[in-house]
Amino acid sequence: MNTTNRGTKIAFQYPFKQKKIEKMFTGLISMMKLHNPELQEAAIDEIISCCEVISFNKNDILVDYGEVCRHVYFSVTGLVTALENVDGKERNCWFMTAGDVVIAIESFYKQQKSMEQLLALEKTTCLAIHVKDLNRLCEKYPSFLEVRLKLTEYYYQQAFDRSKWIFRSAEERYALLLEHYPVLVNLVSARALASYLGISEGYLSAIKKDYYSISS
Amino acid sequence: MNTTNRGTKIAFQYPFKQKKIEKMFTGLISMMKLHNPELQEAAIDEIISCCEVISFNKNDILVDYGEVCRHVYFSVTGLVTALENVDGKERNCWFMTAGDVVIAIESFYKQQKSMEQLLALEKTTCLAIHVKDLNRLCEKYPSFLEVRLKLTEYYYQQAFDRSKWIFRSAEERYALLLEHYPVLVNLVSARALASYLGISEGYLSAIKKDYYSISS
Repeated sequence: MNTTNRGTKIAFQYPFKQKKIEKMFTGLISMMKLHNPELQEAAIDEIISCCEVISFNKNDILVDYGEVCRHVYFSVTGLVTALENVDGKERNCWFMTAGDVVIAIESFYKQQKSMEQLLALEKTTCLAIHVKDLNRLCEKYPSFLEVRLKLTEYYYQQAFDRSKWIFRSAEERYALLLEHYPVLVNLVSARALASYLGISEGYLSAIKKDYYSISS
Repeated sequence: MNTTNRGTKIAFQYPFKQKKIEKMFTGLISMMKLHNPELQEAAIDEIISCCEVISFNKNDILVDYGEVCRHVYFSVTGLVTALENVDGKERNCWFMTAGDVVIAIESFYKQQKSMEQLLALEKTTCLAIHVKDLNRLCEKYPSFLEVRLKLTEYYYQQAFDRSKWIFRSAEERYALLLEHYPVLVNLVSARALASYLGISEGYLSAIKKDYYSISS
């Protein structure tokens, strides 16, 4: 194991000798093939050879405010939040769970200092590709570039949906969260969830109480 | 001219014989080359050959609720809004001005019925590519696929920024709009702008009054 200031690298061999590691990559490749079934074997081999397996403990920082996000992380297990700090108020802008792509969006795309912090809220394991490798792989394998496009479209739709939350009441936002991201409601602390919904913790508690008294 | 139920097609020849049409395409190609300077001449020729020039009058519908968005529109002039209608309340979710890519996001990506309406708020001229041509061009020219990725990343960042509006006061939203999209404040009616900001028209008027009395 190789410990850096940002997570702990877990060594592995390819072809795989560790079942647990193999399973992580099988998941990653399945997800990518879902977005482009024509992803070639040669691309897959090279993607795997570029990946690092990185483990973060709870409260570890993946990317700090002012750092440049140099890696795309594919989350295997765990929970990561994107935080922003405006005038001393810290807000949970986004949550990424198992299966999600984890980046500090603007920092990664522009390779400039991040206005956000990516923070592990639980023990989190990721497969990471450096931006240089990602760009090289996309240039070499259009089939992988297609995967990248489809993933970006997927998250763009999510962000666009969330941008409509300003039209929704707090109660509606909570109902949408339950409908589309039920896993978050169980995983995320009430404090972080209230922040994400743009309301106070007390108000979230009242909404939950009402919600379950109506549902039951 | 060929009038359809969705805009009026303007015939053109390539190589160009009409200066006005040539200028539209020069703008489109410049924008694409900004995202990928390595876009090849062969790709450019084929992109142009797939394009239609379509003109919409004020209040024309580009894509209606329940229609499938089959074209990507590159706006040359004009103003388009994406509307949603939830429980009889119609809201302006997005505005697209000259230089913008215009699609009904989810409908276009999934090729399913649109939950939104794309409406021209001013006389609007677009260059349009059918989704089938777009996909074929992306498959044939990875350099064009790269343009598509970069454009998607650009709009994803915008949607993500806007998703943070739930953390901002109405006054802050207005200030952000002035900072990032000053053109909208002049182009868009007070009614549509208030809808976009998630506030009443009266409140927008009060914000503007305060804003300009502080600024002056």
